[in-house]
Amino acid sequence: MNRPTILTGDRTTGPLHIGHYAGSLSNRLRYQDSHEQFLLLADSQALTDNAHDPQKVRRNVIEVALDYLAVGIDPGRTAICLQSQIPALAELSMLYLNFVTVARLERNPTIKDEIRARGFGRDIPAGFLCYPAAQAADITAFKATVVPVGEDQAPLIEQTNEIVRRINAVAGCLVLPEARAIIPKAGRLPGIHGKAKMSKSSRNAIALSASSEQIRSAVRAMFTDPNHLRVEDPGRIEGNVVFAYLDAFDPDQDEIAELKAQYQRGGLGDGTIKARLEVILQDLIAPIRERRAQLSEDRGYVLEVIKEGTERARERTEATKREVVNALDLFQL
Amino acid sequence: MNRPTILTGDRTTGPLHIGHYAGSLSNRLRYQDSHEQFLLLADSQALTDNAHDPQKVRRNVIEVALDYLAVGIDPGRTAICLQSQIPALAELSMLYLNFVTVARLERNPTIKDEIRARGFGRDIPAGFLCYPAAQAADITAFKATVVPVGEDQAPLIEQTNEIVRRINAVAGCLVLPEARAIIPKAGRLPGIHGKAKMSKSSRNAIALSASSEQIRSAVRAMFTDPNHLRVEDPGRIEGNVVFAYLDAFDPDQDEIAELKAQYQRGGLGDGTIKARLEVILQDLIAPIRERRAQLSEDRGYVLEVIKEGTERARERTEATKREVVNALDLFQL
Repeated sequence: MNRPTILTGDRTTGPLHIGHYAGSLSNRLRYQDSHEQFLLLADSQALTDNAHDPQKVRRNVIEVALDYLAVGIDPGRTAICLQSQIPALAELSMLYLNFVTVARLERNPTIKDEIRARGFGRDIPAGFLCYPAAQAADITAFKATVVPVGEDQAPLIEQTNEIVRRINAVAGCLVLPEARAIIPKAGRLPGIHGKAKMSKSSRNAIALSASSEQIRSAVRAMFTDPNHLRVEDPGRIEGNVVFAYLDAFDPDQDEIAELKAQYQRGGLGDGTIKARLEVILQDLIAPIRERRAQLSEDRGYVLEVIKEGTERARERTEATKREVVNALDLFQL
Repeated sequence: MNRPTILTGDRTTGPLHIGHYAGSLSNRLRYQDSHEQFLLLADSQALTDNAHDPQKVRRNVIEVALDYLAVGIDPGRTAICLQSQIPALAELSMLYLNFVTVARLERNPTIKDEIRARGFGRDIPAGFLCYPAAQAADITAFKATVVPVGEDQAPLIEQTNEIVRRINAVAGCLVLPEARAIIPKAGRLPGIHGKAKMSKSSRNAIALSASSEQIRSAVRAMFTDPNHLRVEDPGRIEGNVVFAYLDAFDPDQDEIAELKAQYQRGGLGDGTIKARLEVILQDLIAPIRERRAQLSEDRGYVLEVIKEGTERARERTEATKREVVNALDLFQL
């Protein structure tokens, strides 16, 4: 039973979409057998750039939990836990902030990019600048050694390991393990209009709860190759959202390779590939939507799942906090 | 029993000295009757610039608690509590960091001065930059409306109130009260060599546990007026440490006024004023030292006092945290 511990999760800022399915949820289903898995409903982290709208963060706690359960996360094997209700995470975060400099946080490439993307300018919430230290607390509090992250988030794991090494150095022992980033092969899916990554907060996503009609119109609206006007014209694969999704979701990748070749030569219409994709997405989402609808009728059960997962998380993180406090020889009552 | 709540405390970086007695401890003895008082052993805050030496912070938890009890703080009326063992303080700190910008923290004059004084340069620990938000958490978690601070710390209360107003604005109700700074009349005492404020961490202080011999030699070494070479010469009062201490500790201020006049005219020797001060300090410190020695034989009692105070603090701060979480409409299990 010595399975490695894996920590993943999502900010509770919106329901999850098929990009999450391709990039993380499908992997998490597999990790349930091979790893001890904690799934963090990251409401505290969501607040670091949503303090003006806490209701949004609150509302989406249940939405994301529903998504987890609907895709097949098994609460018997994966603890689904609520970040804000795990005090040791805040306590370790505050402690870790003393082991990282402001200059180092400001140099973090992920933070730099995100500050730019959010248009914060000089008015960065302090919590946002500090969230890499909070993430280090999350990872280490669970003693997670495996952390699946998007490619753009890899520097955060490096930041975590720097804090781990500093704490171990001051403690004079290896109280915390370093963590390893796993970067999923499937990169992030583009949004349906092809202009940006698929995003919870914009209208370029297909939610895991999308209705049959929403899926159909999303596929119809999908960006392909604007110069591919007639079926017999050669078409481009690069930047073609339909092919990006077929890469991610079509089980028959050999056939996709043939279709791509045909599309590039000319003679394959957008309608044909869209029809193929739509069938796949309808088949993928229909059972998820159905389970999600059933589960959302039983909020008591969902709450119970979060409570139990959070309780397990509290025990684990409290134990780690005590180890860190002991190792640093801090005062304990 | 509707007494206002007062929060004060000390960083646990060293035993307290007579500067603390004059500037804060003597006031705290009086507040015991008029206020509900919480005294915070601020070990978490001490770590913000002592993460490399946690043992120092740990060791001084008991030292500062001994000082409190030795001067007459009554644990029946004042809760002596340990900051790091009160989870709601860390939880509220992390929350409040989202309600203050990095730019605002960097503009804080107290932080600016302290960064300069500590020679941090660019390598400010993030915890140090963020400590005003943690202090806002301390003050508001206890619902303290009165906060005694040194003059140089007054901007921190303004910072607290800014965070309070932002949280109340997002919550749409007055969930947190604003706090008022009380700046004690007695400013900070100079160190015995007259070059800086008396400091726990330098050798220019007279500890509350000082031996009779230490008091004697500290008074002998005290800076007066370097140009006051003969008794009959006129002497300067400004910058004269002996008179600064007589101002703070001599009960007969009329006589001190006369002595000052005589000193300035000429005809009053340093030996005379030092002898007077020494008697006063010996009388002040002897009973404190004695009680302190007795108490330090009974660490179990001191621990019990801290435990009980911390328990009271946990109840109070946990209740406040729940109110804030409710008011902001965050998720609660």
